[in-house]
Amino acid sequence: MRVIGIDPGTARLGYGVIEAGDQPQLVDFGIVETGTDDGDSALRLEYIYQGVQTLLDHHRPDAMAIEQLFFARNVTTAISVGQARGVTLLAASQARIAVYEYTPSQIKHAIAGYGKADKQQMQEMVRILLALDHAPQPDDAADALAVAITHSHRQRFTELTAAGGA
Amino acid sequence: MRVIGIDPGTARLGYGVIEAGDQPQLVDFGIVETGTDDGDSALRLEYIYQGVQTLLDHHRPDAMAIEQLFFARNVTTAISVGQARGVTLLAASQARIAVYEYTPSQIKHAIAGYGKADKQQMQEMVRILLALDHAPQPDDAADALAVAITHSHRQRFTELTAAGGA
Repeated sequence: MRVIGIDPGTARLGYGVIEAGDQPQLVDFGIVETGTDDGDSALRLEYIYQGVQTLLDHHRPDAMAIEQLFFARNVTTAISVGQARGVTLLAASQARIAVYEYTPSQIKHAIAGYGKADKQQMQEMVRILLALDHAPQPDDAADALAVAITHSHRQRFTELTAAGGA
Repeated sequence: MRVIGIDPGTARLGYGVIEAGDQPQLVDFGIVETGTDDGDSALRLEYIYQGVQTLLDHHRPDAMAIEQLFFARNVTTAISVGQARGVTLLAASQARIAVYEYTPSQIKHAIAGYGKADKQQMQEMVRILLALDHAPQPDDAADALAVAITHSHRQRFTELTAAGGA
């Protein structure tokens, strides 16, 4: 099962694609960046939408995993992240890809084993879990991989418990 | 010049279309509603996006006016409004329609003449300004008409001052 993780933002959107399983395999990661010269936010959203569409078309993931936000610096930031999130979810819905949302605490538990892991611990765990030589950069891409791995673990757990009960 | 005003929301999105000018004329108003049975938010966003696309295609407005939010009950609400806003702005950008944002205070000043007008005063002023027998319902549609009229007034003012200076 192929999973794409998304860390949404208007200036830059991080993504990470993995092949889920006992040992998740890294497929791709990076960012969709919209320059400050891209003018108004509507055009920026169009770039993000097109970028996500291209990723979904290229990697054909079975699922999208995305962080569920409960805190933001302020309403303006929350609206801005919401807008980027909106066009991302739209692209997933149009491509008939199921979307799974995870809280920051669920992601930290899944990756680092406890809910208060800091950014550096998380990045190091992503590196180890994907058996990479270096932690993926930039942060937005590492965060996207973390939520993708979270979905992989959760699905694996569901499969194992289902198999055990059969 | 035709203007579409939008009051974005995930459960329901209000719209109002007017022909701008000295005496703005009502063209259409209503809501795009997504039922609670529409499942996950990604599918809801797809319905909203399609609804806005249909409106833009049908009315072919020259401009979209939308409220700029600075306050929300909480981050979850702000994210949710942001998502609906995101797919709305995307539809506008794809249709090459310029988007204008106005603060709640700018809208109240333009419609009621002062920045602290309450909801009822605003609806009554929208009724008077569009020369209607009854205030448009529901609230979401009335709010959308208010922001459309705001843009009409602003543009008219810009035209008049430009003409006066020529």
